[in-house]
Amino acid sequence: MNPIPGLGPIHHVGYVVADLDAALAEMSRAFPLTVVVREVMEAQGVEALLADGGSGGAVELIRPLDPEGAIARFLASRGPGFHHVAFEVPDVDAALADLAARGAEVIDTAGRRGLGGHVVGFVHPRSTLGVLTELVQAGHGAAG
Amino acid sequence: MNPIPGLGPIHHVGYVVADLDAALAEMSRAFPLTVVVREVMEAQGVEALLADGGSGGAVELIRPLDPEGAIARFLASRGPGFHHVAFEVPDVDAALADLAARGAEVIDTAGRRGLGGHVVGFVHPRSTLGVLTELVQAGHGAAG
Repeated sequence: MNPIPGLGPIHHVGYVVADLDAALAEMSRAFPLTVVVREVMEAQGVEALLADGGSGGAVELIRPLDPEGAIARFLASRGPGFHHVAFEVPDVDAALADLAARGAEVIDTAGRRGLGGHVVGFVHPRSTLGVLTELVQAGHGAAG
Repeated sequence: MNPIPGLGPIHHVGYVVADLDAALAEMSRAFPLTVVVREVMEAQGVEALLADGGSGGAVELIRPLDPEGAIARFLASRGPGFHHVAFEVPDVDAALADLAARGAEVIDTAGRRGLGGHVVGFVHPRSTLGVLTELVQAGHGAAG
């Protein structure tokens, strides 16, 4: 088995919202945020943005575009709020393979393109205490 | 008004669980975790631990001790899972004062002792998109 990957720094926390601009304005009243990247992600049926807190912290805001998609269902059933946490890892493919080998339930078996060009992969909440967990390859994508 | 504080790196994400040891064992199957500090916090009616992912990421696990406390009510109504996100700031007192001055709803008006000796303060979810947000003073406490 591969060496166990360490959990790198927390790259961002992701929140589901109904309206990106309203949510950004609301959050910015508390904390100044700079939008690093904003894009429509057709495959996921969402529009998302990554906003930087200025000193290392980052928040991803996600709104559903597809009313039948997972994010729309999340918003309808739970309302706006926390959706996932993303940890940096050196190599997403290797981390996903290692997690699967140790019996964790991975949603992605290989890294794929995420917001801002990041290589990402998701781990099912059933393997991470009920919290949807994203792995982000360090040093890639628009946000570095 | 003071200079607006930037949101520093995400210090940890906090999860509510029913059983600390079982949760730590479950999470450790996916990711190796080292417990940095574990303590009973009588004032909050909880036992909590901070576990380090080895490369910068950290997770706080919290279990209720007081069956009438906020964490017990959280667990009863929502089940185990995400509870809060903690961002580092240079000065918790200054950040709380600044947030309050800009109309954010703060739970603490001054920093107080948190897990592991960290100076912490909380911002109400109503001001942060429905997500309970902790501020942790950088460079203090057992976890650095």
